[in-house]
Amino acid sequence: MKLTLILSGLLLATLPADPLPSWNGNPAKKAIIEFVGKVTTPGSPDYVDPAARIATFDNDGCLWSEQPMYFQAFYIFDRIKELAPDHPEWKDKEPFASVLKDDIKGALAGGEKALLEMAMATHAGLTDEEFRKAVRDWLDTARHPKTGMAYDKMLYQPMLELLAYLRAEGFKTFIVSGGGIDFVRVFAEEAYGIPPEQVIGSSIKAGYELRDGKPVVVKLPELNFIDDKAGKPVGIHQHIGRRPIFAAGNSDGDFQMLEWTTAGEGARFGLLVHHDDAEREFAYDRESHVGKLDRGLDEGPRRGWTIVSMKDDWARIYPQADDN
Amino acid sequence: MKLTLILSGLLLATLPADPLPSWNGNPAKKAIIEFVGKVTTPGSPDYVDPAARIATFDNDGCLWSEQPMYFQAFYIFDRIKELAPDHPEWKDKEPFASVLKDDIKGALAGGEKALLEMAMATHAGLTDEEFRKAVRDWLDTARHPKTGMAYDKMLYQPMLELLAYLRAEGFKTFIVSGGGIDFVRVFAEEAYGIPPEQVIGSSIKAGYELRDGKPVVVKLPELNFIDDKAGKPVGIHQHIGRRPIFAAGNSDGDFQMLEWTTAGEGARFGLLVHHDDAEREFAYDRESHVGKLDRGLDEGPRRGWTIVSMKDDWARIYPQADDN
Repeated sequence: MKLTLILSGLLLATLPADPLPSWNGNPAKKAIIEFVGKVTTPGSPDYVDPAARIATFDNDGCLWSEQPMYFQAFYIFDRIKELAPDHPEWKDKEPFASVLKDDIKGALAGGEKALLEMAMATHAGLTDEEFRKAVRDWLDTARHPKTGMAYDKMLYQPMLELLAYLRAEGFKTFIVSGGGIDFVRVFAEEAYGIPPEQVIGSSIKAGYELRDGKPVVVKLPELNFIDDKAGKPVGIHQHIGRRPIFAAGNSDGDFQMLEWTTAGEGARFGLLVHHDDAEREFAYDRESHVGKLDRGLDEGPRRGWTIVSMKDDWARIYPQADDN
Repeated sequence: MKLTLILSGLLLATLPADPLPSWNGNPAKKAIIEFVGKVTTPGSPDYVDPAARIATFDNDGCLWSEQPMYFQAFYIFDRIKELAPDHPEWKDKEPFASVLKDDIKGALAGGEKALLEMAMATHAGLTDEEFRKAVRDWLDTARHPKTGMAYDKMLYQPMLELLAYLRAEGFKTFIVSGGGIDFVRVFAEEAYGIPPEQVIGSSIKAGYELRDGKPVVVKLPELNFIDDKAGKPVGIHQHIGRRPIFAAGNSDGDFQMLEWTTAGEGARFGLLVHHDDAEREFAYDRESHVGKLDRGLDEGPRRGWTIVSMKDDWARIYPQADDN
């Protein structure tokens, strides 16, 4: 028995370590490893120059959780409560009034437009540095209502491994989020190893001015760009300037990003995370008000996209032991 | 004599190679090397983490020439002539009519607004891939009216060395151009070693659509962003998400980029290329309609910025031997 262990230890030492230990060994994992092998093996007909190995990832519901609502919405609600004493008019003005009454459903009744209005009201006027500090302080203290975890610990361990694996194989990894670009930038480097310049997201406009003689960049209460649905390929075009060869998402907001990515010539990879694990995370898809996945489930498989079942394909969810 | 040569050869072999061989050994070169040493030496009070070593460079007049007018304007004019048969109305419509009569002065009389109008009329409607090919074909055939060189060979050799030197020292180099982001991206990787995702510039909007069933990103005839003056720090904020520690430009359009960069904490470097070499390149500054440098000459030195004299500080201008 002991000898067998030593021998298998020796054998393992000569094999490359499993780059995706939290992925069960089923079709999804095999497809990823096969794709990466094809595009990185010199001489392979599918070989891709390292400079063109661009991989894009949605954030909410793809790299971290997004239930019961987008984590940035929790931030915005907390911020509204914090700023409320300076805004007595909010008591009688929707969607702010609902937030102050802790009526989440009412606050979100106005959909994306209401959320955007609240984002602008709470983000605008801050310099980039003030905004960064406000989000950082919030992440350090706020806790998720269901798990009790810090929001920036509710990352998907299998996706962290996938990001690291792709980078080790010469890929440049980007986030392409419907969420706020500067919000995601606050934690993306520490959480995912993705630097701010590789984060793309929705944004409000910014201006440059001197404050007390010091030059600053200030957020303005005006919409700049919505990085969702058809906005995702456009945002990628504007920020990266070339088409990815690998794209991962989890909702129909990622459909066009995967469509554009996988329609390019040569080997391409489209991945959709399917939230089907009510026990360890959340289960939702076609009917969800957050992260709705309907068209992707129907069309993804015949487009050759890999649908990842969180329940079956992932050995664990979060990096910490909380879920197991 | 021979022995001395051999000995000095041996001595040189033990010293690090000069990273900036086309820079004369005067204050500008010394200041650059001293700055890079400070921010890259572990333990130095000015040490900067590699991830934060962001260096931004203007393009026109900083990395390549910009006289007698921006090279992209030559492209736009050539494109107008090419498209003219499909646009009979241009014969009677300014600024197009002037372009078709080879009246450059008349074509540029409308300033930035007219140039933008012509850019939109000639760029819009193309997919990103069609646009890239059109610019690439033009660069491969068009020649500069004064030098007879291909436009993308009129690069400044000393700046190419500076880019390579900074990258070798762990910097990430970006272009921050008032010119069109996608125009610059066509040649930036080959010319400067700067990949498309590290190019920032002015832009028109883009849309996503299916053409003959194939998903494409298409340029739209609508202004998106002017990356000039106060727009430069804003563009850097949007694309990079952090403040550079090194910025180089050559005109008052770069003033705010240098102001913002050098106002940050810790060691910072601001550099302005001064076009004072009528013999080897062009001489212009305070009165020029292209690349006007006035405020920067006045305020730069007392802000600690390094003013580079092309005449005195650069041993050569272009990579090819044409100028020497």
